[in-house]
Amino acid sequence: MTDYAPPLADIRFVLEHVTPLSRLTQLEAFSHAEPDLVAGLLEEAGRFAAQAIAPTNVDGDQQGSRLVDGAVVTPDSFQRVYKQYVEAGWGAVQHPPEFDGGGFPLTVANAVKEMITSANMAFSLCPLLTTGAVYLLEHHGSDEQLHTYVPKMVSGEWTGTMCLTEPQAGSDVGAVTTRAEPADDGTYRITGQKIYITYGEHDLADNIIHLVLARLPDAPPGTKGISLFLVPKYLVHDDGSLGERNDAKAIGVEHKMGIHASPTCTMGFGEDGEGAVGHLVGEPHDGMRAMFTMMNDARLGVGLQGLAIAERAYQQAADYARERTQGRAPGAAKGAQSPIVEHADVRRMLLTMRASIEAMRTLTYANAYALDLAHRADDPVEREEQQKLADLLTPLSKAWCTDLGVELTSIAVQVHGGMGYVEETGVAQHYRDAKIAAIYEGTNGIQALDLVGRKLPYDGGAFVKGYLAELRETASSLPDELAAIGRALAAAVDSLEQATDWLFEQQEQPVDLFAGATPYLRMFGTVVGGAGMARSAAAAHRLLGEGEGDEAQLRDKITVARFYATQLLPQVHGLLDAVTAGADDLYAIEADRL
Amino acid sequence: MTDYAPPLADIRFVLEHVTPLSRLTQLEAFSHAEPDLVAGLLEEAGRFAAQAIAPTNVDGDQQGSRLVDGAVVTPDSFQRVYKQYVEAGWGAVQHPPEFDGGGFPLTVANAVKEMITSANMAFSLCPLLTTGAVYLLEHHGSDEQLHTYVPKMVSGEWTGTMCLTEPQAGSDVGAVTTRAEPADDGTYRITGQKIYITYGEHDLADNIIHLVLARLPDAPPGTKGISLFLVPKYLVHDDGSLGERNDAKAIGVEHKMGIHASPTCTMGFGEDGEGAVGHLVGEPHDGMRAMFTMMNDARLGVGLQGLAIAERAYQQAADYARERTQGRAPGAAKGAQSPIVEHADVRRMLLTMRASIEAMRTLTYANAYALDLAHRADDPVEREEQQKLADLLTPLSKAWCTDLGVELTSIAVQVHGGMGYVEETGVAQHYRDAKIAAIYEGTNGIQALDLVGRKLPYDGGAFVKGYLAELRETASSLPDELAAIGRALAAAVDSLEQATDWLFEQQEQPVDLFAGATPYLRMFGTVVGGAGMARSAAAAHRLLGEGEGDEAQLRDKITVARFYATQLLPQVHGLLDAVTAGADDLYAIEADRL
Repeated sequence: MTDYAPPLADIRFVLEHVTPLSRLTQLEAFSHAEPDLVAGLLEEAGRFAAQAIAPTNVDGDQQGSRLVDGAVVTPDSFQRVYKQYVEAGWGAVQHPPEFDGGGFPLTVANAVKEMITSANMAFSLCPLLTTGAVYLLEHHGSDEQLHTYVPKMVSGEWTGTMCLTEPQAGSDVGAVTTRAEPADDGTYRITGQKIYITYGEHDLADNIIHLVLARLPDAPPGTKGISLFLVPKYLVHDDGSLGERNDAKAIGVEHKMGIHASPTCTMGFGEDGEGAVGHLVGEPHDGMRAMFTMMNDARLGVGLQGLAIAERAYQQAADYARERTQGRAPGAAKGAQSPIVEHADVRRMLLTMRASIEAMRTLTYANAYALDLAHRADDPVEREEQQKLADLLTPLSKAWCTDLGVELTSIAVQVHGGMGYVEETGVAQHYRDAKIAAIYEGTNGIQALDLVGRKLPYDGGAFVKGYLAELRETASSLPDELAAIGRALAAAVDSLEQATDWLFEQQEQPVDLFAGATPYLRMFGTVVGGAGMARSAAAAHRLLGEGEGDEAQLRDKITVARFYATQLLPQVHGLLDAVTAGADDLYAIEADRL
Repeated sequence: MTDYAPPLADIRFVLEHVTPLSRLTQLEAFSHAEPDLVAGLLEEAGRFAAQAIAPTNVDGDQQGSRLVDGAVVTPDSFQRVYKQYVEAGWGAVQHPPEFDGGGFPLTVANAVKEMITSANMAFSLCPLLTTGAVYLLEHHGSDEQLHTYVPKMVSGEWTGTMCLTEPQAGSDVGAVTTRAEPADDGTYRITGQKIYITYGEHDLADNIIHLVLARLPDAPPGTKGISLFLVPKYLVHDDGSLGERNDAKAIGVEHKMGIHASPTCTMGFGEDGEGAVGHLVGEPHDGMRAMFTMMNDARLGVGLQGLAIAERAYQQAADYARERTQGRAPGAAKGAQSPIVEHADVRRMLLTMRASIEAMRTLTYANAYALDLAHRADDPVEREEQQKLADLLTPLSKAWCTDLGVELTSIAVQVHGGMGYVEETGVAQHYRDAKIAAIYEGTNGIQALDLVGRKLPYDGGAFVKGYLAELRETASSLPDELAAIGRALAAAVDSLEQATDWLFEQQEQPVDLFAGATPYLRMFGTVVGGAGMARSAAAAHRLLGEGEGDEAQLRDKITVARFYATQLLPQVHGLLDAVTAGADDLYAIEADRL
């Protein structure tokens, strides 16, 4: 089993040179987030992730979370580590000071999340969901709700859930049927079942705050009739003390392929009586809008999982490749056994992982950066532009990174050979864990539809075209020494623009638009990752010229960026035909003959 | 849970029109394999796979095979089904009549294997290994060995294993250290441990015949000092009855990510005394050559697993997509919920699976076909050419199909959304099972090295160039109505030829050759699959013109081939740069900085 080493140098490089925090700290809201403070915070978070959380990952997988007499028992090691997590305040990093949060940029909080997720993805889901719930309450909760629930959730003493999915309402949230009846005291009685509720029940915190989508009696059909309710596991008295148990209970825990330690619950509301007590959040019938406010953040959080689990798997594969000897590499002494890291094909696997991971990091951090600017920039026009950028990047972060998470953990298993298929090595767990991220929080197919159906039409297409022009500018502004990267990036942007132009023309033919969505998202993510890598290489090149920084690190950055540009990025050209093929062949075979 | 429906129509189409059996039945050895007989055999095999074996797949996964007091207990359902398998004689299909085999072409036997593997991959490994052992004995065993062991193994009453791998000798078989000491009675005493021995111990058969690689006392180092020994679980008396238990025992069973029902054993030889009794097979120090004789067959068998498990997962995904309603597809009535099979993105996932599966089938069946001709064609020159073709196609079958097996089972999980991640659906099992096929029987990286290092140099490169010319001829000979397929295939062959030419030039720079091996194999497999699909479309087009056959099936064949050619095949262009990049960037980062 390999320890987790927080990739602080790589993270700092992005935060200093690719999406520079110095720009954010000029803003009023983040003026306290000075470089030294952030550096110390990241170092401390990395230490906590590596030393406290990472050792729980295998135990968590083996023990899993189990439903015992209606209660969920988490793995043995989780209680102590979660307590440390709360005491250190890691859940508070990104929340505003008025709710006892740290007030750090999301960009910084995401770096913390990356490391905690690498350490134990199943563990990290509890804070992830809590953060989403807090975010939603911050924007839509009443003063009383903010006062009563949010500080305890920011600290992590109480956790949060998002209760959206029902058996017939997965990707189609509008099909929700859970009901909410008004009671005489101004509260509501919630009845219905929700499935796939992450940490819907557990033993880590004193209370669990469920945010539940349900329909009022007079609700119109579809998404416009959905309201949002706050349903605590234990009712909360006015003085903040806990009251009686609410009728919101786990009635089942899924048996899943991975993330065994994360209890995926079927929740019953009102199974034992008149309904669970719920409080309306925001306006009646306005639940979907509320959900959308947290969606960018949550989807980015899932995208980070693709990055984080690939990073963990990469570290393990690289360690294994350095230790395992087998065969003789070109150039090695006759009769010698070489470490497999010296074989070209193993190098290719490791470089593919490394380059993809660094590209994902530039994308996801840029996505967080855009959200920070969208929320906090001084200029309202910039805020609006950055919000659009974040909206565009979010489906890329979510789907591209989680598809890569699956592919790269598969490569990590492959590097291990037969040892990778044996559970004891631990690398198979990453492969099993990674797959869920491509599914939840909107399947990757839904992300692709969001990209072509909602994001491409921004400003009649001008927004995306402008963004492509920026990518092209990145390519053309590279110094001569990085010309190979520039050429490859420019060619990739050309293909992406051809695909984009073709899709623009299909706005009246949504089926052709949708038919091309998934390969288009793959192209787009690959190119944006390539632009991030080009910026990374440009910064490394500049620093080398100035004699600044760690020379070996900077040279490696350029190598990895060049590998990405010249060997991975060209894959986009092979996807163009699929984007622009239209839907005819997809529908030419009758459904019952498929 | 979805039943398995044997894809008889698809299989028959390939055997009639793409790699026509009619050519094989003109040969003396296969003259009895008449169309009606083969059709009946396949139908019966499909029925057995679907009705008897397929229902054991989930139970097998859940119960697994366990080591209990030194014995391996297989899942409850396996004993009865294995008995039926032996009684029906399914293991005998491809073996020659002189050993009580059916004497059918390997091409036919492979179709049977495909269906049995789809039904239960973990079960199918027991016959697969037995077939490999029989094959080896047929070619290298003494008359006594042939007489004593082979008929019982052909029938399946006894099973076989291949004992190659040791902890320090995985991909590098030459590093084997298991020892064989000559005994006074002409037998040998084998001592050592082997790992990853599939069905090394189990309760399905009366005896297990281990074929073990070991070193004689005077053996030179490396692969030239390896000999092959037959080590039965129970010693066999001259009259064929079973004698005492040999000192060849399972001392551990691996805890794996998938194929839980297949016991992957650590075998100890001579743990309790002077060594296990073994019989030399073939000449001393000649064990590797013996292993190589079965390698094409075994690697093709593993390639078939990629196809077979993808087919099973595809059927399950298509069924789910027809049943599951969610959201409204373009064109559906307002407010209606459509089956997800009507969504373009789900169609793309299903078509990607379907087209890749059909392409894999044309490749693997063509590979078997080449082996049949290599063994049985009348003309020795043709035999030699077909052997080269089989040698070329084998790494493609093994690695391309098993990589696709992983990718397509991942898509099948994705089609199921959250349900796919829950083990109860059964589709997650396919995803877990599929990964091993990319690893064992020579990792896919090893296959790529075999392709560029051993197969490309055949006839100084002329053989591969000639084969590329045949692929180009396939493209140019398509009728006008299939011009889109022809153009796409011709362009893909151009890219493959560029890659090939570049690799030819690196024969003196093996590290650059090896660096490009894996993306090159991916290109090659994709193009050969594309040529198979083009031939399939041409046959369907001809039959439609003649008014023959099932019109809907034929139209679907053309659609699937066009989808493959125009939407999947172009991916090869995106791989060319990686093939021809050379090794510099792979080695530019020091190993301890990876």
